[in-house]
Amino acid sequence: MKVAILGLGSVGRGVISVLARKDLGIVVTGIADSRSGVMDPAGIDLAAVLTRKAETGRCGEPDILGEDIVKNGDYDVLVEVTPTDIVTGEPALTSIRTALSRGKHVVTSNKGPLALQYTELMRLAEENGVHMRYEATVCGAIPIIQTLQHGLAGNKVHAVYGVLNGTCNYILTRMADEGLTYDQALAEAREMGYAEADPTSDVKGIDTALKLVILANTIWKNGVTLGDVDCTGIDLLTAEALTLAESQNCTIRLIGEVVPERDLLRVSPCILPKKHPLVVRDTLNAVTVVTDMAGAITQVGKGAGSVETASAVIGDLLFIRDCHVRGD
Amino acid sequence: MKVAILGLGSVGRGVISVLARKDLGIVVTGIADSRSGVMDPAGIDLAAVLTRKAETGRCGEPDILGEDIVKNGDYDVLVEVTPTDIVTGEPALTSIRTALSRGKHVVTSNKGPLALQYTELMRLAEENGVHMRYEATVCGAIPIIQTLQHGLAGNKVHAVYGVLNGTCNYILTRMADEGLTYDQALAEAREMGYAEADPTSDVKGIDTALKLVILANTIWKNGVTLGDVDCTGIDLLTAEALTLAESQNCTIRLIGEVVPERDLLRVSPCILPKKHPLVVRDTLNAVTVVTDMAGAITQVGKGAGSVETASAVIGDLLFIRDCHVRGD
Repeated sequence: MKVAILGLGSVGRGVISVLARKDLGIVVTGIADSRSGVMDPAGIDLAAVLTRKAETGRCGEPDILGEDIVKNGDYDVLVEVTPTDIVTGEPALTSIRTALSRGKHVVTSNKGPLALQYTELMRLAEENGVHMRYEATVCGAIPIIQTLQHGLAGNKVHAVYGVLNGTCNYILTRMADEGLTYDQALAEAREMGYAEADPTSDVKGIDTALKLVILANTIWKNGVTLGDVDCTGIDLLTAEALTLAESQNCTIRLIGEVVPERDLLRVSPCILPKKHPLVVRDTLNAVTVVTDMAGAITQVGKGAGSVETASAVIGDLLFIRDCHVRGD
Repeated sequence: MKVAILGLGSVGRGVISVLARKDLGIVVTGIADSRSGVMDPAGIDLAAVLTRKAETGRCGEPDILGEDIVKNGDYDVLVEVTPTDIVTGEPALTSIRTALSRGKHVVTSNKGPLALQYTELMRLAEENGVHMRYEATVCGAIPIIQTLQHGLAGNKVHAVYGVLNGTCNYILTRMADEGLTYDQALAEAREMGYAEADPTSDVKGIDTALKLVILANTIWKNGVTLGDVDCTGIDLLTAEALTLAESQNCTIRLIGEVVPERDLLRVSPCILPKKHPLVVRDTLNAVTVVTDMAGAITQVGKGAGSVETASAVIGDLLFIRDCHVRGD
């Protein structure tokens, strides 16, 4: 199976390092970062690309662009792992549309295109008889999308609740453990590499809301978008709020909730008993699916990280390699 | 898709009641309990079968046997949900072999055949180009087999640990909470319907060991069987042992462990901190998979129950309906 990879940030480098190390029957024929690209229908030397990227900041030649690879490259699956743009979804949205229209499968970790155009992209995949898979967009290494689509197939989903953002969870854990203020805990999260220079998307709950939109569309398939989410972040929480919760043997977590039957899509800081299954620590993610047959199933694991997110991308690639949906 | 169902105990009745209620594109053409059977290539009236079973103890005519349905029935998938026999695996083992040899897919909740002959049955399925699926054999509604086979595909599994038996977990929860002796907690579990009249297989750890053997074969594919498991149950635990653990902010759980790299297959009561992710309460199951890429993923949910186990069977049926493994 031939794949082209767009994006050489943390996720892209994770995917390439795994493919360089493991013999999974996958040949990489195209790679592009934002400034350069490399193509070889016979298979690219992945270790050399990682070295070149580390040394020069570029993976290949400046005259080879990602869009050329998408349009003209020889690949079966496009792996789209560029950064998320929540306003336009670009350039990922155009890349994904182009690949699907060419009859190529797509695997992505990019929340923007799916949160903006889930219904259109799924229809385009179906019309072209290919897979559009996105396990890596929600909860990193936890296979929550596969659980919803396959593991719990046949179940009616009553609700999905979860801690979907590791940055917020780290900040809340530190505020509770050490009595830190929000600003102190955020500064610490930055030092640890758990928060970005601009943490707005994480701390305002937008990242969680994007994941909720993707989960809701996976269950509901009704085209909800970011504007449908009632969203409150953690940036206004005081140290006193955490202390008060702790005094009641509770704590605060940023919870995303999808409840189809009540048309509920909400992100908000919630007070939970410390024994609650969603009270996980540090950067962990946790997600509970409540269904008619299976009851409540909770999954806990690493929600971010280069190799952890690569695990989800690789799982999708192997699913495409091993399965063909008959389409019903 | 046409299915034949063998076994009308708790799981079989759960599957039939779900198929009667949900339109999943599945037609049931044969059903047998231990004393009778019914066949109809056009589709059996499932509600009528459940009523007849409840009123008479039989699902159909005494001259129609399960083995006739397996050999001569018109079906695509055999759903084998008869009780587990850990010595011979029969009659399930023969039914499964016959169906696979006829080129029929098999979905089972029966641990016996898989714990005894995993390698042979998988080879037979592969030779005949059909699926042999068994999500319902381990952890009820938790999709742990799909997680290992698909969600974490491409990962190297370093270990699987879990609370795999709800009966033992209920007994241990009650001993810790109320200071009950083992005998008192067992009696209570029986009253609640969580323990069988003969609880030997549960409390001696044999049920957990069977599940470990199935998990180990799923990861390892090396033909381990029950005799390879180092197995200690909970039946000799004293109330004092629980009290001592509680005094250290710990508790005791019956843990099954598979660690391929150390050739370790063990069932034993373990002292765990109360905050440990495997310390779940009452009849819940919990299982942690540790891999090279995804890190540790823990899943918690209902490990038994008629509809919960049916959820796993239905998930397998829909997987077969929707996917075809290319076979590699």
